[in-house]
Amino acid sequence: MSQDYKFEGWLGKDKDSANGNMVWGEFPHVKPFEETDVDIQITHCGICGSDLHTLSSGWGPTPYPCCVGHEIVGKAVRVGSKVEKGIKVGDRVGVGAQNSSCLKPDCEECSEGLENHCQHTVNTFADQYPDGSYSYGGYADYHRCPSHFVMKIPDGLPSEEAAPMLCGGVTLYSPLKNNGCGPGKTVGIVGVGGLGHFGVLLAKALGADKVVGISRSNAKRDDVLKLGADEYIATSEDKDWATHHARSLDLIISTVSSPNMPLMEYLQLLKVKGTFIQVGAPEDQLPQFNAFAFIGKGVKFGGSMIGPPWQIEEMLNFAAEKKIKPWINEYPMKDANQAIKDFNAGKPRFRITLVNEKHL
Amino acid sequence: MSQDYKFEGWLGKDKDSANGNMVWGEFPHVKPFEETDVDIQITHCGICGSDLHTLSSGWGPTPYPCCVGHEIVGKAVRVGSKVEKGIKVGDRVGVGAQNSSCLKPDCEECSEGLENHCQHTVNTFADQYPDGSYSYGGYADYHRCPSHFVMKIPDGLPSEEAAPMLCGGVTLYSPLKNNGCGPGKTVGIVGVGGLGHFGVLLAKALGADKVVGISRSNAKRDDVLKLGADEYIATSEDKDWATHHARSLDLIISTVSSPNMPLMEYLQLLKVKGTFIQVGAPEDQLPQFNAFAFIGKGVKFGGSMIGPPWQIEEMLNFAAEKKIKPWINEYPMKDANQAIKDFNAGKPRFRITLVNEKHL
Repeated sequence: MSQDYKFEGWLGKDKDSANGNMVWGEFPHVKPFEETDVDIQITHCGICGSDLHTLSSGWGPTPYPCCVGHEIVGKAVRVGSKVEKGIKVGDRVGVGAQNSSCLKPDCEECSEGLENHCQHTVNTFADQYPDGSYSYGGYADYHRCPSHFVMKIPDGLPSEEAAPMLCGGVTLYSPLKNNGCGPGKTVGIVGVGGLGHFGVLLAKALGADKVVGISRSNAKRDDVLKLGADEYIATSEDKDWATHHARSLDLIISTVSSPNMPLMEYLQLLKVKGTFIQVGAPEDQLPQFNAFAFIGKGVKFGGSMIGPPWQIEEMLNFAAEKKIKPWINEYPMKDANQAIKDFNAGKPRFRITLVNEKHL
Repeated sequence: MSQDYKFEGWLGKDKDSANGNMVWGEFPHVKPFEETDVDIQITHCGICGSDLHTLSSGWGPTPYPCCVGHEIVGKAVRVGSKVEKGIKVGDRVGVGAQNSSCLKPDCEECSEGLENHCQHTVNTFADQYPDGSYSYGGYADYHRCPSHFVMKIPDGLPSEEAAPMLCGGVTLYSPLKNNGCGPGKTVGIVGVGGLGHFGVLLAKALGADKVVGISRSNAKRDDVLKLGADEYIATSEDKDWATHHARSLDLIISTVSSPNMPLMEYLQLLKVKGTFIQVGAPEDQLPQFNAFAFIGKGVKFGGSMIGPPWQIEEMLNFAAEKKIKPWINEYPMKDANQAIKDFNAGKPRFRITLVNEKHL
């Protein structure tokens, strides 16, 4: 099978790229094609906070040049002879934040469907394969990925909406599902931005009795209620909010994190045996805990990180079936620098998808 | 039904009582008898860390005079006409750390079998009933308790062993059971004292594949292995213990707590999706957390506080069936002051039971 396309995209060459200074160019060390791989002609790619943390080296040193973007949708244009899931040339497929894991039968994580927690993962961008080649993300024309981490996109789910679900969506879907979100449960979503808005949509679609959006100010109140939230708490404006809403939530998913977050008050919102899950990945430490807050009510604090491929597929099918409508702002791929400037300025309501119009 | 006995016991009259300076005397404000109550002639009472925290006002101001002890076993000598569970005069019964909760049908906790988390609990000592009367513990001759919180002691379980299980035992049994301890699971117990030794015994009896005792020094290594632990980690003596044992445990129960505990290293010991449960109630804050430690492995930190009556009964029956043998040091009730001095000095291996010899 010949290859008549180039791996090109928006490259970050230093920390300043995070300010909207990426440059278009060819990828220097693309993974050699293997028979388990799929090459994808990219039509859509969502913008995720991780992209900016990586461009700016905020989570640690980034191997520049890098191309970010891990919410990729497009068309399979080259398919190895040993791919999984019957993927064929021409299929509409997607890739999330993960490109690879060891997939060995004796790997405790991979063998139990927890590939996202394998110790030998390769992220979709700014990461290195065992052979020394690099992974490059989806602000680009083409993406190469091992088929285990390529998902078919179900009919009925528009590509611009499917894209941001591949990381943003599953980051909320996974902890909601894994912690029993459904009928009879009350759920709070802390921080209603790109991630949190998926939390409101998915918790409602999963049948939770009550979904509460929790944010600092009232600026997003109307939009969050329009999304489907039953209630809204503005922690810096509503008086005595923690006491007023004490013991009202079974599950809280927090998409934000800072040493100043009112963590003890959030725990006050939990019912007995409730669970608080942190998905927002901070660059700082969390506020200090007092063990009594946990012992007295038997509550738990945990973390969650994206989701394994089987769960992403489950979510995509669920979203198609329930006709979940994320709020997406579309930008042409050529305007990626402007898009990340607007992302940094907090403009999107709620998530941006880059559209590679030449591949539509 | 007449009453020919007095409510007398060891009274703490100030903070200094925690140093072994309790005095014997009558209880001033005993709860008036109701038809749902049981009076117990005390034969045994375990010594729990809570007793000392309360005598010394370490968890907050104590209403002196108080009589501590919430691991009470004895004989039912007066039984109201409306008691639960068919308790009869002459039955061997026990009481743990809780004497009462609201038990209302619209109480979310009480109606779901989570009486220990009801917002209207009355502790077994140093607490006040709604009518203004006080609760007095088991370093005493008699104890009065609403029958919902009185457990029958199964045949085959000696009283001196049943007593410390009523708080110490269930404090470990509850989080072990609630978090899936059993075949296929590996369990760590941090701190192997009075509480932790129950953790080792119960986790083994529940069928865990591997039970690891975790303590600061090697001083208790031999005893902990004799208890049945499969491995032992001495965190201040074993080199690189956190790396060496990384990702090896599904569940850790911590019976100790201090701002200096190596919490991040304990979390390192957890497998992906593992759980760390704190049961030791500290007077201080915990060390600061980094959210990445939770997100990367999808682990959880939680708290647990004693257990509801149904679970205490389940544990007592389980202990009788499995012939669990706690390590008990017996002291005569008359030597209670010496017993708490020895407790403070860390002498017991592993738990002390006071024996009220005049009632045997």
